[in-house]
Amino acid sequence: MELLKDRILKDGKIIGDGIVKVDSFLNHQLDIELFNEIGREFKERFNNVKISKILTVESSGIAIACIAAQYFNVPVVFAKKHDALNIDLDTFHSEVYSYTKQKSYNIRVSKKYITPEDSILIIDDFLANGKAASGLVDIVQQAGAAVAGVGIVIEKGFQKGREVLLQNGIRIESLAIIESIEEGTITFS
Amino acid sequence: MELLKDRILKDGKIIGDGIVKVDSFLNHQLDIELFNEIGREFKERFNNVKISKILTVESSGIAIACIAAQYFNVPVVFAKKHDALNIDLDTFHSEVYSYTKQKSYNIRVSKKYITPEDSILIIDDFLANGKAASGLVDIVQQAGAAVAGVGIVIEKGFQKGREVLLQNGIRIESLAIIESIEEGTITFS
Repeated sequence: MELLKDRILKDGKIIGDGIVKVDSFLNHQLDIELFNEIGREFKERFNNVKISKILTVESSGIAIACIAAQYFNVPVVFAKKHDALNIDLDTFHSEVYSYTKQKSYNIRVSKKYITPEDSILIIDDFLANGKAASGLVDIVQQAGAAVAGVGIVIEKGFQKGREVLLQNGIRIESLAIIESIEEGTITFS
Repeated sequence: MELLKDRILKDGKIIGDGIVKVDSFLNHQLDIELFNEIGREFKERFNNVKISKILTVESSGIAIACIAAQYFNVPVVFAKKHDALNIDLDTFHSEVYSYTKQKSYNIRVSKKYITPEDSILIIDDFLANGKAASGLVDIVQQAGAAVAGVGIVIEKGFQKGREVLLQNGIRIESLAIIESIEEGTITFS
């Protein structure tokens, strides 16, 4: 998706080898017009697929999932990462290891909101090692629902997330795949 | 907003005096069609007001803020509640006390994303004691920006959030104001 790649090159801040910060438009300040283009693109790529719900994980996936959901006319469910008193006790959960936080945490979805009849599109802002996406796939499979695919805004092609998902037979559509971030330069695949 | 009140009566689960759970449509599973009606209603109520950005706080405010932003044609900024390595060090922050978690936490917004020229609409899903909304107001004021108003989906009218905000001269628009939740019955103002 050229518009997105151009935006990453223009406004992304490289803060080290392999790390680009996109908080000016994707995950702190949110450019809703761009999100609409992203939603439209996901719809185009998954146009021929049955999708009954979009699943994401808090927090930065929520915004993208909600705007995209308008193009699919389906509800969004977001997995909870953090303890909350108001979540159901009866949840699907999956342990996810975070490399940035160097620890594991549980993501949880109430059993009421994914059923065996569902065909779920998983959406997230980043794919790197694939831990979060795999946790979401695990939850969908626990529910006996189908994974229609995984839609990613920015994939770090130099990490192993895609490989992990493909091994599980999951279709992945990434709108921008970064091949490398080296010496201050971002290269797309 | 009648559509919203009807939905709260239909799908809200009363789980104790003063507490209603709306996670089937508002803060775990998200009914994006309803969110569009909510966004339209916020636009109608703040139609005559200059708004340059919408500010909310993660996680459940993000979805509502993003859908509403489409009616205002402005970006969204969400305050971060949780530690993240990728946030700027240079932030506005405000301490917020959570009654449900019985502890204080900091909410933070990078100084890059609110400037003195901004006129900010604050949006959140719930108003109860007003701690989160007051923290967001504090951040906007630290930035020297104007608070255009606070838009709330569900206000607990029996708690003191409105009073706190009005004392600071803040305009509040709540789409459903619950006067009481007692003996299994929700009464709106």
